[in-house]
Amino acid sequence: MATETPALLSGTPVVPGLALGPVLRARTEVDPEAVAAFVAPEPVEEALAAYDEAVVAVSETFVRRAEGAAGEAKQVLTASAGLAKDKGLRSTVRKNLTAGSALLVALEEAVEFFAGLFAQQGGLMAERVTDLRDIHKRLLAHLVGEPEPGVPTPEVPSVLVAEDLAPSDTSGLDPSLVVALVTEKGGSTSHTAIIARQLGIPCLVGVAGALGLAAQTLVLVDGTAGTVEVGPDEAAARGRVEQDRAAREELARWTGPATTRDGVPVKLLANVADAKSAASAAEAPVEGVGLFRTELSFLNTKVEPTPEEQAEVYAGVLSPFGPGDPGGSGPHVVVRTLDAGSDKPIAYATKDHEENPALGVRGLRLAFDNPGLLDRQLDGIALAAEQTGVAPWVMAPMVATVAEAEDFASKVRARGLKPGVMIEIPSAAILAHQMLQVVDFLSIGTNDLTQYTMAADRMATDLTHLTDPWQPAVLHLIAITAEAGKRNGKPVGVCGEAAADPVLAPALVGMGITSLSMAAAAVRAVGAGLGKVTMDACEDAAEAALAASDPQAARAAVREVLGL
Amino acid sequence: MATETPALLSGTPVVPGLALGPVLRARTEVDPEAVAAFVAPEPVEEALAAYDEAVVAVSETFVRRAEGAAGEAKQVLTASAGLAKDKGLRSTVRKNLTAGSALLVALEEAVEFFAGLFAQQGGLMAERVTDLRDIHKRLLAHLVGEPEPGVPTPEVPSVLVAEDLAPSDTSGLDPSLVVALVTEKGGSTSHTAIIARQLGIPCLVGVAGALGLAAQTLVLVDGTAGTVEVGPDEAAARGRVEQDRAAREELARWTGPATTRDGVPVKLLANVADAKSAASAAEAPVEGVGLFRTELSFLNTKVEPTPEEQAEVYAGVLSPFGPGDPGGSGPHVVVRTLDAGSDKPIAYATKDHEENPALGVRGLRLAFDNPGLLDRQLDGIALAAEQTGVAPWVMAPMVATVAEAEDFASKVRARGLKPGVMIEIPSAAILAHQMLQVVDFLSIGTNDLTQYTMAADRMATDLTHLTDPWQPAVLHLIAITAEAGKRNGKPVGVCGEAAADPVLAPALVGMGITSLSMAAAAVRAVGAGLGKVTMDACEDAAEAALAASDPQAARAAVREVLGL
Repeated sequence: MATETPALLSGTPVVPGLALGPVLRARTEVDPEAVAAFVAPEPVEEALAAYDEAVVAVSETFVRRAEGAAGEAKQVLTASAGLAKDKGLRSTVRKNLTAGSALLVALEEAVEFFAGLFAQQGGLMAERVTDLRDIHKRLLAHLVGEPEPGVPTPEVPSVLVAEDLAPSDTSGLDPSLVVALVTEKGGSTSHTAIIARQLGIPCLVGVAGALGLAAQTLVLVDGTAGTVEVGPDEAAARGRVEQDRAAREELARWTGPATTRDGVPVKLLANVADAKSAASAAEAPVEGVGLFRTELSFLNTKVEPTPEEQAEVYAGVLSPFGPGDPGGSGPHVVVRTLDAGSDKPIAYATKDHEENPALGVRGLRLAFDNPGLLDRQLDGIALAAEQTGVAPWVMAPMVATVAEAEDFASKVRARGLKPGVMIEIPSAAILAHQMLQVVDFLSIGTNDLTQYTMAADRMATDLTHLTDPWQPAVLHLIAITAEAGKRNGKPVGVCGEAAADPVLAPALVGMGITSLSMAAAAVRAVGAGLGKVTMDACEDAAEAALAASDPQAARAAVREVLGL
Repeated sequence: MATETPALLSGTPVVPGLALGPVLRARTEVDPEAVAAFVAPEPVEEALAAYDEAVVAVSETFVRRAEGAAGEAKQVLTASAGLAKDKGLRSTVRKNLTAGSALLVALEEAVEFFAGLFAQQGGLMAERVTDLRDIHKRLLAHLVGEPEPGVPTPEVPSVLVAEDLAPSDTSGLDPSLVVALVTEKGGSTSHTAIIARQLGIPCLVGVAGALGLAAQTLVLVDGTAGTVEVGPDEAAARGRVEQDRAAREELARWTGPATTRDGVPVKLLANVADAKSAASAAEAPVEGVGLFRTELSFLNTKVEPTPEEQAEVYAGVLSPFGPGDPGGSGPHVVVRTLDAGSDKPIAYATKDHEENPALGVRGLRLAFDNPGLLDRQLDGIALAAEQTGVAPWVMAPMVATVAEAEDFASKVRARGLKPGVMIEIPSAAILAHQMLQVVDFLSIGTNDLTQYTMAADRMATDLTHLTDPWQPAVLHLIAITAEAGKRNGKPVGVCGEAAADPVLAPALVGMGITSLSMAAAAVRAVGAGLGKVTMDACEDAAEAALAASDPQAARAAVREVLGL
């Protein structure tokens, strides 16, 4: 029998695990026939009254959903309720109506105007474009008398398939009823991916052909292999899901510290943002912090904090891990100096209006014109070290040249601390051996390294097949960097998304990577996985990955070598 | 005797050659004491009248200068005259005055508002920010009764030293009186650099400490080595300048074709934009066109031209070089498919509002969502080949993966043409060997390759020390690419700024680069230089460049090896 969809779709795996269920289609568009049949109210006053009524209904829906939500989702929904009622939007609609546009056109033009404006402003404002377009669809639905777009509540555990998901689609998703997410667009940093990680359900993004899946089709989603099996044998598939669940439960009991099956130690560390996440990471089976993102504490700070004020923030992250044993074998904490700029502007430090902020004055480069900024941060870190008795390692982001590394290292050493640099610019990876002549450790930031190596914005949803750390050129730069570490007998870690990928992690270790830093929640799967393979197998996995011609081939080759 | 400035400053060399003269300081700022002493007129009407008077004076100055200028300079000055009189600027000044700001504050706020707006719009609008700030200074000068900023006319041939130069500063510069340009800021693509190339006078940009040079200090500018000698022995310096002039006159008589002293051929080719520049390049001692930038013909085109319309444009570039001998040994022309996007938007092809356009959907990536765009361009190129009897080589810009190269090659071969790819993304350089398994030639675009390898925007004036093709990591990627060419017996050219650098060119040839494509005006210096060195010396130069730890050391090492 011929089927319209192929038996196997593939995409970018975001959250591992297996899930089985019928396809549940999110309603993302308002029925175009209803839109075509809509008779626009006239004159202007009546049209505006219809608009106002739709606004009230839509914003009330948001408020109601916000009440049932928590955390970030609650914030997003509350903000959307406000945005729907925005006075600027209303006055632009009125202006367009007065100028002679029919209501739906007036609304669309107003939305496009604000979407353009938001996009131009960049950063967080640009991210609100998705919310604005979502509000537009809901208003449209109300005006033409159709149900609001969104995710219908399924009757049985189902696999949600959509083009992409907006925050308002995913708030309140019940992981017992929606067991996996599959989207045709979106990347590993998209909203869909973030939500799937929070819910802990398997997720694939960038799945070509996903929208061709008919509702109710049975699919088996493999969030590790990155595949969607269409119409699998149900009994066999159910058995595999059960097996996977048992394996994941076993993982949850893993307690560390990590070694390969033959006992080669690998440091697993946590990425943290503040005292709160550091305290919670200290409860996980990690050997310290591999990446403390200091800039996240100052995103809303207008005036530069003094070294003393900074020390208070830093001490909050160091304390849960110290003072450890004075011989130095205790847990270690790696502090990254301000990686502000680009998508993380800080009022007192960064530049506005750069043409390409990701290629601009960010990270260590902020100190080119303003060396005091770095000096005061290092003073703050040194002070926190003194107060807590924990001497952190300190690394600089966005280092491109050996001279930059040398200058940074001398400042860090002058304060009695251990200097390192992030490897996230291709130049730094190519010069890794020379970098290790002047610093004591390296940490590879795979997200940015991939972005620059592939010349593809990590936030651009239409380039996600390029922003994949499994791309052969990225793996080569990681291997060069790891090799430099072995040659110099100095530690080289990975602290990007790649470190948390249980398939990639053994290959990284096989290349010579000595530590992996990730969200604390990902540690158990990586640690348990490493415990099942020998160092020889890791080295074979590294070789297989490096020999592959594209990301899919690399993943498949490594899985085969490791028997995953 | 102690001097305040060091005896030798260095920066990025932009136009080669030696020049000697006293320092001439451009007046870039209005005397701050005069500004501080200014008593703002009141009430609003009087302040606005003073503003209007200043606007008239400033715009008249621009009009007068435009009359004395030609070409691009004339256009820029005429546009500035219009911008000074802009009604939006005036109404914003009035609004600020009405809100209670004093005149100079009201003006500054209005300028900042528009500067922000322009910068947000990006591209060509962002470039107008420099013009706007220049207008601001001139208005300020008129209001407080000071002379307008600018370049004073010197009495003797002088070296102009400034922070950076605006178009209005440099229009009408007389190269017999201003013999060299030295700026503390700016990069090799800055306005200063463009003007210096037009005038053919030695130029250095990004010279740290340049603003510390006192007016009238005698300096020797070496636009090849990238140095400024402060207070040299005058007689000796004059001798060196004479020698340099004689050497440059000798160059002008060079007729090609290029070989090393021991007869190894190196293809020197021209970069062209259209039929006119192709015709003029055909008069230069080149063996063809190494880079035809097709996108430049369509920057102002709203609707996509048909293949037939495109063929007409392409045939105009092919004809001057064909049909040559049917055996295929004639001159060759390399056509690059649309490199639109980023700083070269094309209405019918590119995306708006990307967060980081240089890392966005540009070049070959435009065909991801719109493959017909590429197909129709290739049809147009094939048609032009048929019409002219010249079969061009065809290459794609912004290739990151081998799969992209393979797909492109099959489309080009299907039309009977020879396919290649640009190497301008680090990934492509790292995979050069694999790329040559699927295409017939490579061409390294050093400007973009440097931008991505260093993660530094080539247009960002504060990162020019990073966007230097002499950076060790960039040289390594060029060497990897050249090596892949040798290994596969296929040609690898360079078509970025680096190809026109007479010091770097022999080192590139020593790495295995087989052709160099550049502005036709630069060909003679490169060709004559190559004729003076053996292939062994080129290989030694390559080795010396690759072993150096930074751009300055690399330049110095190559100059020493080559005896320059």
